[in-house]
Amino acid sequence: MAAYRELHQRFDRHYLLRSSADLLEWDAQAMMPEGSGDLRAAQLGTLRLLAHEAIAAPDMAACLAAADASPPEDPWERANLVAMRRAWVHAAAVPADLVEARTRATSSCELAWRTARREDDFASLLPQLEEVVNLTRQVGQAKASVMGLSVYDALADEYEPGVREAMLTPLFARLERELPPIVDAIVEAQARAPKAPVLTGPFAVDRQATLGRHLAGRMGFDFTRGRLDVSEHPFCGGAAEDVRMTTRYDEADFLTSVLGVVHETGHALYEMGLPRAWARQPVGQVPGMGLHESQSLLMEMQAARTPEFLGYLAGVASVHLGLGPDALSREALARHALRVERSLIRVDADEATYPLHIIVRFTLERALISGDLAVKDLPTAFRDAMERVVGRRPGTDREGCLQDVHWPTGAFGYFPSYTIGAIAAAQLFAAAVEADPAIPSELARGEFTSLRGYAHEHVHQHAARWDTNGILERATGRGLDVDALLRHLRRRYLEDASGS
Amino acid sequence: MAAYRELHQRFDRHYLLRSSADLLEWDAQAMMPEGSGDLRAAQLGTLRLLAHEAIAAPDMAACLAAADASPPEDPWERANLVAMRRAWVHAAAVPADLVEARTRATSSCELAWRTARREDDFASLLPQLEEVVNLTRQVGQAKASVMGLSVYDALADEYEPGVREAMLTPLFARLERELPPIVDAIVEAQARAPKAPVLTGPFAVDRQATLGRHLAGRMGFDFTRGRLDVSEHPFCGGAAEDVRMTTRYDEADFLTSVLGVVHETGHALYEMGLPRAWARQPVGQVPGMGLHESQSLLMEMQAARTPEFLGYLAGVASVHLGLGPDALSREALARHALRVERSLIRVDADEATYPLHIIVRFTLERALISGDLAVKDLPTAFRDAMERVVGRRPGTDREGCLQDVHWPTGAFGYFPSYTIGAIAAAQLFAAAVEADPAIPSELARGEFTSLRGYAHEHVHQHAARWDTNGILERATGRGLDVDALLRHLRRRYLEDASGS
Repeated sequence: MAAYRELHQRFDRHYLLRSSADLLEWDAQAMMPEGSGDLRAAQLGTLRLLAHEAIAAPDMAACLAAADASPPEDPWERANLVAMRRAWVHAAAVPADLVEARTRATSSCELAWRTARREDDFASLLPQLEEVVNLTRQVGQAKASVMGLSVYDALADEYEPGVREAMLTPLFARLERELPPIVDAIVEAQARAPKAPVLTGPFAVDRQATLGRHLAGRMGFDFTRGRLDVSEHPFCGGAAEDVRMTTRYDEADFLTSVLGVVHETGHALYEMGLPRAWARQPVGQVPGMGLHESQSLLMEMQAARTPEFLGYLAGVASVHLGLGPDALSREALARHALRVERSLIRVDADEATYPLHIIVRFTLERALISGDLAVKDLPTAFRDAMERVVGRRPGTDREGCLQDVHWPTGAFGYFPSYTIGAIAAAQLFAAAVEADPAIPSELARGEFTSLRGYAHEHVHQHAARWDTNGILERATGRGLDVDALLRHLRRRYLEDASGS
Repeated sequence: MAAYRELHQRFDRHYLLRSSADLLEWDAQAMMPEGSGDLRAAQLGTLRLLAHEAIAAPDMAACLAAADASPPEDPWERANLVAMRRAWVHAAAVPADLVEARTRATSSCELAWRTARREDDFASLLPQLEEVVNLTRQVGQAKASVMGLSVYDALADEYEPGVREAMLTPLFARLERELPPIVDAIVEAQARAPKAPVLTGPFAVDRQATLGRHLAGRMGFDFTRGRLDVSEHPFCGGAAEDVRMTTRYDEADFLTSVLGVVHETGHALYEMGLPRAWARQPVGQVPGMGLHESQSLLMEMQAARTPEFLGYLAGVASVHLGLGPDALSREALARHALRVERSLIRVDADEATYPLHIIVRFTLERALISGDLAVKDLPTAFRDAMERVVGRRPGTDREGCLQDVHWPTGAFGYFPSYTIGAIAAAQLFAAAVEADPAIPSELARGEFTSLRGYAHEHVHQHAARWDTNGILERATGRGLDVDALLRHLRRRYLEDASGS
């Protein structure tokens, strides 16, 4: 047990440094004055490096081997040892100089990307993006040789432990085949449906903020262990013991900020529901970004877009926005919240077309990493793929391959998480309602107790004791099941007219 | 130069860790939800320990010796080497287990102090305070033997490099002798003076905040490199490149929050005026807490309480608080801002009686550290000293020895900084006005350009290139000069009636 104890201490230090860096990143997005970026970058560089060193020391292999040789009895500790090894492999497989070169390259590429996107100028980004792809491929190769995986799988494993290309390829192939006719049918049905009234603002920002805090509170967000602030790009950061989520406000459109808060609160409830005793160890973290996304989508897409909750939201939003008690109708909210259309920008896409955007990226990022697609050919390949898969051809790179921050920051293998999350959310919501048919009527009263209880019992409290598939199997009887998402879309948009 | 370069890198890392911890401490005071204290304490413990280790490694002595053997040519680098050695002595002189024991003891004693003060229960604090005094004495002994100083001087040197008990004792003896008759004369004069109107609120908090930001901006606070927020105990934290200052608001009393902002802005201007090129090295920091305090008092006590600035403040406060253009008079503000009385609480004391409160603490903390005063006898000794020196006897320990956080947190040797700052502020303001007689008329317009320019030229830009006395000598022709403070008090309160 001495070896395990030693590892426990090192991962504790790793966590404290990482969570300190996460708090500094939250501050950079939500609080930091604009002129302090140089200092912050240097602070983060130091903290991230020390966090890395805490679990990548040369004697870690021996320490892990010793712990494996006399493993702990407790099942959580055993699972923690597995999670420790995985974290160590990702940290130690890559030579330090390659880590550093890639960190430098992605930092400078992200800056270049901001300008390139604003000015729709892919050429200015090309050399730096080539460097990032090249270095990320080398990172993937280093990990692949240690982990016995393909390069893409080794990269994706950082975000989605245990999920493999061989599993994703048929899943996405099926979505690529079956989603377009569903989308066509929805678009056609919505064109025929009677038009509900348009939401016209302005909606005062401070009233939107009050509404957002009200909803987060109803959902169970614990304001004694977290905050809600404003940032340009909403996110849920901080740490499980101190969750910092953000949103942004637009006077013309309160629904986006409100559903954004619901989304981030879904992430936050997951973090807040992780077992306190394991908060600072690898087994106490979420098992993958897909399952994290499933918890935000469970709330934002599954629960908050039910006719029941939209009815509650119409009432409470009317009051909090100072519009008078019946100014908003469920139908008006549904018209905006459930609108389906083939569009160009992923982050604005509806839940029916969203997986098509992911397919474009999943296809192209594998080709970039394998070298089958040269970075210089990305703009055209992106437009072609969008036209083929989503059914819309971007006229600019700003609306094409420059729209996402992921590749410039080296996050290859992340995109599938969004669709894994959407599928898992559909599975979990169906299973929750089956287990407790009162959930929809609770949502009609703005009550989340039963749904949150289900999520906590079947997902949150298990942290990374099992991987995503293991958790889904235990919760729903099946691993990742694309049918659940297709069924959900058909039911909500084609069979049950009440919500559209 | 290789040794110097190596040291430069280590102190860079030390600074980045320390400033990260400082940001987390600001967050804990101004932003953090109440339930996240455990995580924050653990994060801070890790960051402070790593910062310590970065400059306390076993080979530091050899590294410093090598750098001394072939010192850099540049005068800033040479001064930096001196400052590095000083920082190293303070970091490395104390055995690691003693550092750790004291950190644990002060953390738990601070918590106990919060309760003890609230409940006026010194007995509950006694065992923990005894432990802190005992461990702090051991720390002082360890430093004293390395530094060739007395125990008290070794402790005080951490806050006030180069300032010694032998210099402070006659200084405080003189203040103890000469201040009481001045205070008596002021109190008598103020009792005879015609009464200006009382300030009656409520003053809306958001309007006070706007007024505070207006004044900070007029003073030259750079909001692209800093923020102003709210915390229970106002302070100026963060880092020179990212200054985080706070204030607190009271609807019944805007003057305290406004003058608090002026005070913290004085600290902030010092930080923001330090040379950017040296921001992360020891020579680029302030040379001592007394000089830091001099910059806040230069603004809050010297500049902002002149009749000229109070006239400006009356006008601008009337407007920003929405009271109508002439609702406040200079006389009304002066009545509150210049009120002198013998009182019990140090932090609320006026500038004339404040040094008497410090004398009480300077006397008692030396006796505690030497062992001449047993901790159990502190309550009575504190009441006796207050009665003798300040002229008021506290009826409770809450208004007596429990009022300050310093001793429970082990900060012995800090208190003199407040009076060093007050003296230096009086010297610097007199020298500034002598150098530029237009300063008062600028203050009458809310202009700080010339005063800030003087402070920057004579104090800020030199950072820790010289010690406090060295900076004062170069600026004013004299080292710390108690006459300047006495002269200032006589002039403001006894000779020049216009401000009272």
